Amino acid sequence: MIKERSLIQQIRRIAASSVNKAVKKGIGDDCAILRLKPGFELLVTTDLCLEDVHFRRAWHSAAAVGHRCLTRGLSDIAAMGGEPLACFLSLGLPADLPQAWVNGFLRGLLALARRYKVQLAGGDVSSAPQITADIVVSGQVPYGTAVLRSGARPGDRVYVTGALGGSAATLKELFAGNAVKPTKSSSNFYPTPRLEVGGYLRKHRLASAMIDLSDGLSVDLSHICDESGVAAILMSNKIPLAKSTDFELALHGGEDYELLFTASKSAKIPSRIAGVAITEIGEIRNRRDYSSAIQILRDNGKVRPLPQRGWQHFARER
Amino acid sequence: MIKERSLIQQIRRIAASSVNKAVKKGIGDDCAILRLKPGFELLVTTDLCLEDVHFRRAWHSAAAVGHRCLTRGLSDIAAMGGEPLACFLSLGLPADLPQAWVNGFLRGLLALARRYKVQLAGGDVSSAPQITADIVVSGQVPYGTAVLRSGARPGDRVYVTGALGGSAATLKELFAGNAVKPTKSSSNFYPTPRLEVGGYLRKHRLASAMIDLSDGLSVDLSHICDESGVAAILMSNKIPLAKSTDFELALHGGEDYELLFTASKSAKIPSRIAGVAITEIGEIRNRRDYSSAIQILRDNGKVRPLPQRGWQHFARER
Repeated sequence: MIKERSLIQQIRRIAASSVNKAVKKGIGDDCAILRLKPGFELLVTTDLCLEDVHFRRAWHSAAAVGHRCLTRGLSDIAAMGGEPLACFLSLGLPADLPQAWVNGFLRGLLALARRYKVQLAGGDVSSAPQITADIVVSGQVPYGTAVLRSGARPGDRVYVTGALGGSAATLKELFAGNAVKPTKSSSNFYPTPRLEVGGYLRKHRLASAMIDLSDGLSVDLSHICDESGVAAILMSNKIPLAKSTDFELALHGGEDYELLFTASKSAKIPSRIAGVAITEIGEIRNRRDYSSAIQILRDNGKVRPLPQRGWQHFARER
Repeated sequence: MIKERSLIQQIRRIAASSVNKAVKKGIGDDCAILRLKPGFELLVTTDLCLEDVHFRRAWHSAAAVGHRCLTRGLSDIAAMGGEPLACFLSLGLPADLPQAWVNGFLRGLLALARRYKVQLAGGDVSSAPQITADIVVSGQVPYGTAVLRSGARPGDRVYVTGALGGSAATLKELFAGNAVKPTKSSSNFYPTPRLEVGGYLRKHRLASAMIDLSDGLSVDLSHICDESGVAAILMSNKIPLAKSTDFELALHGGEDYELLFTASKSAKIPSRIAGVAITEIGEIRNRRDYSSAIQILRDNGKVRPLPQRGWQHFARER
């Protein structure tokens, strides 16, 4: 049986190895204390990671669950162009969960934290009927430079990093009962938050709007359209497909954790940033000219509205 | 059935009524953006609030659950002497939960948020087998002035705010199957975070160490002792008892959300701060002179070690 106090002591001990100098006080008091650089503002994001909703113990190793959990938060920091500083983990665990699972989860989470100099600086633990993790990531960005969802303008081009649909393709195999070997490069098991790309775009003021692809291209692009008051048209033949996926999964599959951004037509967008391919996939249009937020130009030359069919937790149970 | 997108829209709409000017960007982007006052550092705390662990639907109204949930976080900010700025709510909900419950929960949480000018600035929603809430509160405090658990020194006096054991007494009645009328002044249903007291103590540099009483006096005082490397002696006849409680519940019952602090012998501690009674209950001693962290001077004049028997989630299921 996992004891609350010994679990906190375990987490505190291993968290000491992930250090960021912005953290003045980590685990061990009522609050953590962080000091931002002068002229910087704070970014905060929180993401739930629940057993049988966001992962399955039979499919995802404990280390992969820990990695995925932190990636969700880091990817949100990347989508603002920010620099992550610290994370906070609220963990609800079944009383009969093996200690080895907890160890693996923390190992996966903290390996990723160390890679980006993110300090585990606090959290909470409790018993719970199923594994319940809520990850909070705080980061910083110079005053007024965060890239919002609301800055896309008609005429801007739409870009994505990497390739899409890989994570959903893996999930489809798992649902079909097929064995999938989890590799460190698998976007479903070990997704990479695009922090270097997001930081580059912010620093060079290249992106007019940005979001991370967690729910799927069709849903996440609609968020940019809604917040910016614009429409978008996607070119189906430009969308970069991951290996072993298909077009529908690339459009609607979630959890790719790539970045989707817009940039003015005149912006010089490199074809690769920090080793990651950048692909132009569409264009921002006037919202009033279209009946729905997103249109897609199919290979047959026809333009059709694209429905939003990405991940919606309450709409279906996984 | 609760839909994820409409739930987010509902929360975003009603959260707009709780405004704090530190929040530059609230709900509606990948991260919230907060700007601290120059010369201030950031406080962050996270607290889980889980059905059947921290509350029961049969005992606690939805509004009381929302209030209690935010109190947990605000009380941690109070215990550092901080000023709360924003909160973030991660919410996992069963698919069959009535919308009325969600409305009541948000009403209770946001009424408390407005009272302290705390803006609901972000979060996450998901489906979950049981009601799962994780509340994050961020606040600020001038550089280097946060009151830690680690500052208690031998000779310091030990103080508490308010009266103890009231929340546990209510819980005991509920466990016994007795009806308890939830009033707005009940510490179990509507606990008050002691933000004014914590802020006063910090501003006047009166407290050497501070913690909030969430797990119970015996456990929370042991945290101050452990972090400060000291022991403490409590005077049993000085401990302020809430109405209808007993001495054991005052020592070991959790969820009072009063503040426990230490101050040098020479510090002038008012008998009331912001209308709340302050009571001296003990003294800090050298740790090496005692076999355990906390001793208690009983009415019979005998000094005995006080075991830690407060709330420990993994030790027992409520």
